[in-house]
Amino acid sequence: MCPSRSILEHVTSRWGVLVLAALAERTYRFSELRRAVGGVSEKMLAQTLQTLERDGIVHRDAHPVIPPRVDYSLTPLGQEAADLVHALARWTEGRVPEVEAARVAYDVRRAEAP
Amino acid sequence: MCPSRSILEHVTSRWGVLVLAALAERTYRFSELRRAVGGVSEKMLAQTLQTLERDGIVHRDAHPVIPPRVDYSLTPLGQEAADLVHALARWTEGRVPEVEAARVAYDVRRAEAP
Repeated sequence: MCPSRSILEHVTSRWGVLVLAALAERTYRFSELRRAVGGVSEKMLAQTLQTLERDGIVHRDAHPVIPPRVDYSLTPLGQEAADLVHALARWTEGRVPEVEAARVAYDVRRAEAP
Repeated sequence: MCPSRSILEHVTSRWGVLVLAALAERTYRFSELRRAVGGVSEKMLAQTLQTLERDGIVHRDAHPVIPPRVDYSLTPLGQEAADLVHALARWTEGRVPEVEAARVAYDVRRAEAP
């Protein structure tokens, strides 16, 4: 897969979008972030964060304390991605009524087609 | 799946992105569009166009002539989507060097971790 395609997939993945939206607001610890994202399993969130960290989008800051504490935040690159993804996600949310109306009209046309 | 999620998936799908980019420029017939997108099978392009038509993003104009002629273009809703998706796609393309450097650095860190 070409690299730009994989970046696009990571930042527009189901959990990628929500992680970017949360971290655009502030730094989170893992368990806090899991609550903020909602509905994500521990395993999926860990995998999403790892993928975004590897892409240089999320910064993982592991503090050498007991009990261990890990903070997640966006890098400057991640902040750019979050802005663009957020604009697109906001647009899709705002256009749900139009899209749903289009889907109904399409299904009616198809059902009526000879 | 919630509706905004499915819209996001359709417009950021592999072929969805490329179809929006092509149709943002001008109207295309199917075979022209297939050449413009490049690497897409007839079946996948037809399916992508049908999904985007159903969402109210692509307009399909079938002319009652012989041989049949079908033109594809963006609806006003589709033009909005194309602008936002294009901004994100351009960003990912422009950031490939940074992301690739981050991936190499990450893999090195992981390989060196105790």
